[in-house]
Amino acid sequence: MKEIKDQIDYLTTLVTTNRVLRFDEVLQQRTKHFTVVLEDLYQKHNQSAIVRSCDIFGIQDVHVIENKYVSYMSNQVAKGAQKWLDFKMYDSINHNTQACIDAVKNSGYQLIVTSPHVDSCFLQDFDVTKKTAFVFGVEKAGVSQQMIEQADGFIKIPMYGFTESLNVSVAAAIILQNVTERIKKSNVAWQLTDFEKMEIKLNWLKKSIKNIDLIMQRYANSK
Amino acid sequence: MKEIKDQIDYLTTLVTTNRVLRFDEVLQQRTKHFTVVLEDLYQKHNQSAIVRSCDIFGIQDVHVIENKYVSYMSNQVAKGAQKWLDFKMYDSINHNTQACIDAVKNSGYQLIVTSPHVDSCFLQDFDVTKKTAFVFGVEKAGVSQQMIEQADGFIKIPMYGFTESLNVSVAAAIILQNVTERIKKSNVAWQLTDFEKMEIKLNWLKKSIKNIDLIMQRYANSK
Repeated sequence: MKEIKDQIDYLTTLVTTNRVLRFDEVLQQRTKHFTVVLEDLYQKHNQSAIVRSCDIFGIQDVHVIENKYVSYMSNQVAKGAQKWLDFKMYDSINHNTQACIDAVKNSGYQLIVTSPHVDSCFLQDFDVTKKTAFVFGVEKAGVSQQMIEQADGFIKIPMYGFTESLNVSVAAAIILQNVTERIKKSNVAWQLTDFEKMEIKLNWLKKSIKNIDLIMQRYANSK
Repeated sequence: MKEIKDQIDYLTTLVTTNRVLRFDEVLQQRTKHFTVVLEDLYQKHNQSAIVRSCDIFGIQDVHVIENKYVSYMSNQVAKGAQKWLDFKMYDSINHNTQACIDAVKNSGYQLIVTSPHVDSCFLQDFDVTKKTAFVFGVEKAGVSQQMIEQADGFIKIPMYGFTESLNVSVAAAIILQNVTERIKKSNVAWQLTDFEKMEIKLNWLKKSIKNIDLIMQRYANSK
C-alpha cells in the first residue's frame, strides 16, 4: 500500500491539479458492488454505448465473453470511456462463458440475467443490496443456455407495447441507472475501498502520462 | 364517433380475437401526455432504438424534424415498433424546426430539451404532471440553437464518470422509462381519451389487414 501511495504521489506531480481532482471525484462514485457481463455482443455501437453507461453510472469492472464474435473491446487501444474501466476478457478458444461465470461467482457476485423472456423479477422490485453481476447477451438471441442454467436470478424492465425487447444497450443503461441510484440511497457499503481507489488511481495516472514506461523506469531507479 | 365505432366493429371480425385483445391492452398503456421530438438524428440504430423505447413505454406520438439529414422513418414502409406509433414529419425545405416547435406548443406541450450541457433540472426532480414534449438532438452536436432558445426547460440525467454524454437513444430510454413510471403513480389523467383510443385502434386494425383498401371500399358500398 505504501509503495502504491508513493507512486501515486510521484505521478501526481506530472499531471494537472484539475485532473487529479477529477480522478478523486469520479472515484468517490465508482463501485464494484455491481459489475456487468457482456456475452458475445457483436454490434460495436451497442458495446460502445454500454461502456459509456458503465462509466457514467460508476461501474468499474466489465467482463467481456467472446465466443462466436470478437469484441471490439479487444481490438483497439482503449480510448474514450473505455480507458477508465477495467475489462476482464474471456477470449480463449473454449469455455469462455464458464470461465466468466466461475470468476464472477468466485468474486462473490450473484449472476443476474436480464431477459424479458424468462419469468423474472421486475427491475423496481430487485433487491440491490447483494453484490450483483448483470449479464447482457448477444443481440436478438440473448444470453446462452449455459448462462441461463447457472443464473442466480432474472430481471426484466416492465414493457407496455408491441415490441418484445429493448435494445440491449438501452436495457443495460436503464438497469444500471436504476440500481446505482437506489444503492446510493441505501446503507450498503457500495463504494470502493481505499486500496481499490488507490489501485485505480495509479492506473489512471499512468494512462494520463506520455512515455509512462520510461518515467516508471526512472522512478524505480531512483529508489 | 359512431362511424369510427362501426368501422372498428366491422374490421374486428377480420382479425383474431387475440390481436384485438392485445390492441386493447396496449391502448390502456398509451399516452399523449408525453411526446418525443427528434431533431435531425441520422444514425439509424439510434432512431430505431428510440422508436422501440417509445412503443415499449407507451409514447404514441413522435415528431421527426429533418434538416440536414433524411430520417430513416421517412424512407421505408413502417414495420416493427414503428408501425404502431404516429409520426409527424417536419421535412419541407425550410424552417422545419420552427414548424415543429409551433405545432408542439400549439398542442399544449411544454418543450423540454434534454441536455447535459445546459444548467438543467435533474430527471428525478422533473415535474411530470405537465404535458411535455422531450426533445432529443442530433448525435454529438445536440439540439439546435433555435430549439434551445425556445425551450421551456432543460433536463439532464445525473452522470458520475468521465464521459460527458450518454448515447442519445440511451438518454431517451432512461427519461421515458422514468417519467412514464412516475406518471402512472400520479393522479394525472395520462391515458388516452376514448376517442383517441378508437382512432388509433381503427388505424391499427387497418394496418393488420391485407388488401385493406378493397375491404374499406366494400364496407363503404354496403352502407
